[in-house]
Amino acid sequence: MKAEIINIGDELLIGQVVNTNASWMAAELNKAGIKTVRISAIADDKEDIVQALNQASQRADIILVSGGLGPTKDDITKKTLAEYFDSGFYFHEPTYQQIKKIFEARKIPLTETNRQQAEIPEKCIPLKNKNGTAPGMWFEKGGKVFVSMPGVPFELKPMMSEQVIPKLQQKFNLGIIYHKTIMTTGIVESVLAEKIEAWENSLPANIKLAYLPQPGIVRLRLSASGKDRKKLEKEVEKYCMRLKTIIPEAVFGYDDITLEEVVGKLLAVQNKTVSTAESCTGGYISHLITSIAGSSAYFKGGVISYSNEIKIKQLGVSPEVLEQNGAVSKETVEAMALGVKERFGTTCSVAVSGIAGPTGGTPEKPVGTVWIAVAYNDGIISELFHFGEHRGRNIRRSALAALNMLRLKLSGGVPPENCI
Amino acid sequence: MKAEIINIGDELLIGQVVNTNASWMAAELNKAGIKTVRISAIADDKEDIVQALNQASQRADIILVSGGLGPTKDDITKKTLAEYFDSGFYFHEPTYQQIKKIFEARKIPLTETNRQQAEIPEKCIPLKNKNGTAPGMWFEKGGKVFVSMPGVPFELKPMMSEQVIPKLQQKFNLGIIYHKTIMTTGIVESVLAEKIEAWENSLPANIKLAYLPQPGIVRLRLSASGKDRKKLEKEVEKYCMRLKTIIPEAVFGYDDITLEEVVGKLLAVQNKTVSTAESCTGGYISHLITSIAGSSAYFKGGVISYSNEIKIKQLGVSPEVLEQNGAVSKETVEAMALGVKERFGTTCSVAVSGIAGPTGGTPEKPVGTVWIAVAYNDGIISELFHFGEHRGRNIRRSALAALNMLRLKLSGGVPPENCI
Repeated sequence: MKAEIINIGDELLIGQVVNTNASWMAAELNKAGIKTVRISAIADDKEDIVQALNQASQRADIILVSGGLGPTKDDITKKTLAEYFDSGFYFHEPTYQQIKKIFEARKIPLTETNRQQAEIPEKCIPLKNKNGTAPGMWFEKGGKVFVSMPGVPFELKPMMSEQVIPKLQQKFNLGIIYHKTIMTTGIVESVLAEKIEAWENSLPANIKLAYLPQPGIVRLRLSASGKDRKKLEKEVEKYCMRLKTIIPEAVFGYDDITLEEVVGKLLAVQNKTVSTAESCTGGYISHLITSIAGSSAYFKGGVISYSNEIKIKQLGVSPEVLEQNGAVSKETVEAMALGVKERFGTTCSVAVSGIAGPTGGTPEKPVGTVWIAVAYNDGIISELFHFGEHRGRNIRRSALAALNMLRLKLSGGVPPENCI
Repeated sequence: MKAEIINIGDELLIGQVVNTNASWMAAELNKAGIKTVRISAIADDKEDIVQALNQASQRADIILVSGGLGPTKDDITKKTLAEYFDSGFYFHEPTYQQIKKIFEARKIPLTETNRQQAEIPEKCIPLKNKNGTAPGMWFEKGGKVFVSMPGVPFELKPMMSEQVIPKLQQKFNLGIIYHKTIMTTGIVESVLAEKIEAWENSLPANIKLAYLPQPGIVRLRLSASGKDRKKLEKEVEKYCMRLKTIIPEAVFGYDDITLEEVVGKLLAVQNKTVSTAESCTGGYISHLITSIAGSSAYFKGGVISYSNEIKIKQLGVSPEVLEQNGAVSKETVEAMALGVKERFGTTCSVAVSGIAGPTGGTPEKPVGTVWIAVAYNDGIISELFHFGEHRGRNIRRSALAALNMLRLKLSGGVPPENCI
């Protein structure tokens, strides 16, 4: 079963509004086992709407339209749809009562324009809009379904979830598409692709793999199609388990979980606390940790030691260590980690010292050189990284690498099925 | 001049990723005076790509394609484009050197897959990808321009702004649209709209105003169209000056400058240093400050005091003050600001203590209650804010309000033409 989404609105075409309706609608269709083959954003223009409907109906069985409905006169969608389906209009009393109810609740007088919203095409099944005045419209033509919905998200969403999706499931005998996203870190995309090539080639025809890379993270999405959801889940699970035997340390979780969430869960479950000593990451690690609600249970705080003076005074790094090894060194970063752990009285700590750039690099320590240490009650580990030239990405990658080192330490380096 | 945007990616069609590239690209085209007539998200599939290119070229003069480029094998765009333009491949040495450079900087071995990214269609003009390995490709056919760019936002954006838009302006001899964005903070959109209504109504027909609100910041974009750039600049400047007399303290700069940049410039110029004491913002203020290259000249560091114990031990807040007033209070936040300023030896400091949520609120101090203090050599100021219920936005708004208080203090409350 194939669907297309058509979002009507000039605001989308000038880039003033991000089309979040489209991704939400596509995700809803996907969950129902309906494959979206195209999403189009078009102008609030009769000719464009007709052309989009014609082309979409050649490719898909279900055409969902959002936007272009409303009391103001620049909305021409309803008239265009009536013409497209060769339909006259009639006054729909339940829609009028719904409009009246909304205006009475807001204590605003009803205008003639609002009354006209109850005039709907004869050939449609009206869909109730519980949060607004423009009803949805369900048309059928040549075995295909066309649904028009308002563009305001809080009007669109309940209409689609509660009315459109159930009606589609009923009308078409729908198959299932099951997705699972494997979150990986620590291996760049090209190396990852080579490591898992044999595994990828072993996937059956009904399971597709997609790489979704971000700086520091590569998401691997498996999409399985079939009829039996339980069977698909089981099949996908089998391939996930196999993958974990190939790259056990890289997999940190599933389905868009973040590293800071995984680390937070590990700390909370193990009843441990953490503190941070940040130089080049400048507070970003702490920001990630504290972006998680409830992080005060395991995060006590940290020191941002941007200058050597602060490393000495606030973290107890000895001036000799700094003098002999420099701020970006194994010795300094380990002293920072131990210092913050002791002063903040936490179970473990992370410390980062590096050259974020664009200046400050030397031939021996170019921009992107970053030392990271993780201290815990029975020892300390540290590692050297080279992240490249871009300041923002150096900060992001350093923070993710620090969280990942902490994660691996907390989970004992074992695959994460044991720890999340 | 009409354009279409085609975004390739299965992740868009299952709704896993919101298509922010589309709105960004449309906004860039709009700024250059190019009208986007349609945006399509399609699958990473040969037939779909060819059909989308055919249909788009019937409606538009410029077809911009993003996504579907990358080292892994699920990317078929490059081959499809070569076939579409009836072109063979050749090995493009500069692209290979760029790929090598990126891998060498990161000290990762180059694979055969990476090397293949330097194989490009003979009939395209390659566009340099300064942040990644997949080059962009500029094709021309029948007077129309087709450009393929990578889908990773930080690779796409500089390629489009720095190479594609200037080339389009040159090729199509486009009229001039001059934009200037006025950055404001501290006044919510609806109040701002009332304050500047008369000014807005006084704008001539060739200057359009757009409100671009974000949490904590409202950008006001003036777009002037005409033929003489110097004249447009002068006219827009006149209206900017008038606006500043209406809302002098709210305007903090122009053209997407950030508050952290403005504060950094003020500190650098005045030869001052700053430190931070953060509770609910959890390091986010420090992260914003240190996201600016060169911030080590004025930022010494900070303490993230997520627990009361750390506020006492690391910032010298007295237990009595905490006991009597609570962590979220004028007294505590002022003690935090004074404590970090003294211990870090800086000219000024900012401190924040609040309830980010979702838990921790009380009837007297609900979620969103935030105290902010700015300490400097001759005194201290503090202010109470109420930001609402959303954790992420509370953190962001608190940080922006703190930076804004510091900005106003450093600039002596005078309009920013004197300070940036």
